[in-house]
Amino acid sequence: MTLPLIDVHTHMYLPRYMALLRQRTKVPRVVSRAGGDRLVILPDEEADTSTSAGRPIGGEFHEVSRKLAFMDQHGIAVSVVSPANPWIDFVEPEEAPALAAQLNDDLEAICAGSAGRLLGFGVLPLQRPETCAAELRRIAGHPHMRGVIVGSAGRGKGLDDPDFEPIWKAAADAGLFVFIHPHYGVGHGLFPDTGHAMMLALGFTFETSIAVALLILRGTLQRHPALKLLIAHAGGTLPYLAGRLDSCVKNDISKDFGLAQPPSHYLRQCWFDSISYHPPALAALEAFADPSRIMFGTDHPFFRPHVGDAVLDRTTWPVPEENLQALASLSPARQKAIAYENGLAAFGIALP
Amino acid sequence: MTLPLIDVHTHMYLPRYMALLRQRTKVPRVVSRAGGDRLVILPDEEADTSTSAGRPIGGEFHEVSRKLAFMDQHGIAVSVVSPANPWIDFVEPEEAPALAAQLNDDLEAICAGSAGRLLGFGVLPLQRPETCAAELRRIAGHPHMRGVIVGSAGRGKGLDDPDFEPIWKAAADAGLFVFIHPHYGVGHGLFPDTGHAMMLALGFTFETSIAVALLILRGTLQRHPALKLLIAHAGGTLPYLAGRLDSCVKNDISKDFGLAQPPSHYLRQCWFDSISYHPPALAALEAFADPSRIMFGTDHPFFRPHVGDAVLDRTTWPVPEENLQALASLSPARQKAIAYENGLAAFGIALP
Repeated sequence: MTLPLIDVHTHMYLPRYMALLRQRTKVPRVVSRAGGDRLVILPDEEADTSTSAGRPIGGEFHEVSRKLAFMDQHGIAVSVVSPANPWIDFVEPEEAPALAAQLNDDLEAICAGSAGRLLGFGVLPLQRPETCAAELRRIAGHPHMRGVIVGSAGRGKGLDDPDFEPIWKAAADAGLFVFIHPHYGVGHGLFPDTGHAMMLALGFTFETSIAVALLILRGTLQRHPALKLLIAHAGGTLPYLAGRLDSCVKNDISKDFGLAQPPSHYLRQCWFDSISYHPPALAALEAFADPSRIMFGTDHPFFRPHVGDAVLDRTTWPVPEENLQALASLSPARQKAIAYENGLAAFGIALP
Repeated sequence: MTLPLIDVHTHMYLPRYMALLRQRTKVPRVVSRAGGDRLVILPDEEADTSTSAGRPIGGEFHEVSRKLAFMDQHGIAVSVVSPANPWIDFVEPEEAPALAAQLNDDLEAICAGSAGRLLGFGVLPLQRPETCAAELRRIAGHPHMRGVIVGSAGRGKGLDDPDFEPIWKAAADAGLFVFIHPHYGVGHGLFPDTGHAMMLALGFTFETSIAVALLILRGTLQRHPALKLLIAHAGGTLPYLAGRLDSCVKNDISKDFGLAQPPSHYLRQCWFDSISYHPPALAALEAFADPSRIMFGTDHPFFRPHVGDAVLDRTTWPVPEENLQALASLSPARQKAIAYENGLAAFGIALP
């Protein structure tokens, strides 16, 4: 079955941001080598000064035409594009609000020129939380912006940072999505010499899971039932662990979180991308989530097709392929819901 | 449907071990208060000197009669009892081998006197890895011992500690199970003021997941296909993340682990308890695991029934109830397989 697709998890390094990364001498940075640009962004890549530091990147990381070509190749009708990690986390606080606004305006302009193919999630200057609600309200006036992407670590104090309360209120009031996405990972001192694999597979999903669980336990989703959280990578691990979290909260004699409902109730208020990679995880997500709140995603441009160190430009990409294969384990009606129907409803759009 | 049950995840603090904990002045320890004994074992409880440090415990943590009463109340025919965390991790290396042997002999004697109701998983002196293979071979001669429980952190260097290689070989050769169980947690500096809930729900499952993923990536399960690993708490998070781990390994240009098969292949060699707490997680476990390698567990005596701070002795316990409710989402044939058929086959026993 060939389905039209709405891609809710797809990234771009905007040109203004690429220029910034190229100027930098520390992580995160882009290094130009004879063999091509390399993106050096992960915390454990900081010390690596070799020519093979980070990962090779090409135009698919920052060119709109490459995003559209990828979409055409994979049957993606509309993409909701988000800036990629680590966003503007490293920017000095006094510069962050203006840069966030510029990047959000850049993304709006790109989407406006895409003939309906692109929508956007902007960024927030989390270093200056008191400015974020105003930026959210400003973004809400941009016709192609549908929310913001927020790193699970916040400004280093998690998402349950009390100073973020106005962000949740402003996003809920504006009807904007907040896309929760990891960058720093959890536990990576525990798995040395594992390349990017353990960090991305486990460290990233653990980071997201802790952040969202804390948002729930601190009552954020109880206080803001209209808040639209989209949780990256099929919710990290939470659709699997939600029952255990409920039990651990209910049976913890040492702590009362004061929640009216079990944590899973609030987790079910959230949206999830379908980036689950295999049918068992998709089965759990399907059994757990609100059926209207699971939406297809590709994580483009991460995991370029390759054989060994050679990047292949003329094949389909692995992540959408793996996730479409997992989707095929569901009924045709559920495939349609996840592939595009839920996305159309969530973002108020029609297929172009 | 009332099923006979084989419980593969159920703990005891053996009397000799309780005496040791009562003598100690540091974590882990048992403190006797006017209101009853309190168990203080988690790393973040170290600094707590209040009378409410740790958790209240009673005879259900160390009395065989209470274990049997719990089993009778919940329809459990046979329990495979394991010592509880943190095992003998804190013991000086020179004392560990003799203590491990004594505790294993104690457990064998308890099981031998139980008229077929109890089997055992012993402990290993991981501080002295060079002694562990001999202890495994010794245990294999005990008629009621079926394996060992091993903490996911090993001796502080993870389970992919190269010095542990003889353990995996000896366990595989003897046909003994190795029950992988967490204690120290991962990420707990990230979730202050959350009681035990975040540590147990997320920190514990992340610890197990990292340990088993590293065993797989380092080739342990490729080298020892006959090794019988039983992974606690429904595999931590791995049945959910296995597809993502496969993809991250396959697409990591920076690292080749030299595995003949994707990580999920080796994970499917493992056994899992059914302590999943809700049908979505059980659905993923069912879709992922070898159908003959999922077995019922209760995690007794953790999470005593309580209302507020008052422990209730006359009700059923929450964890077996929650997990039996999840099991009811499966077909009668699958319920039987998980409840007791798989356990009977795995441990070579008949219902008493």
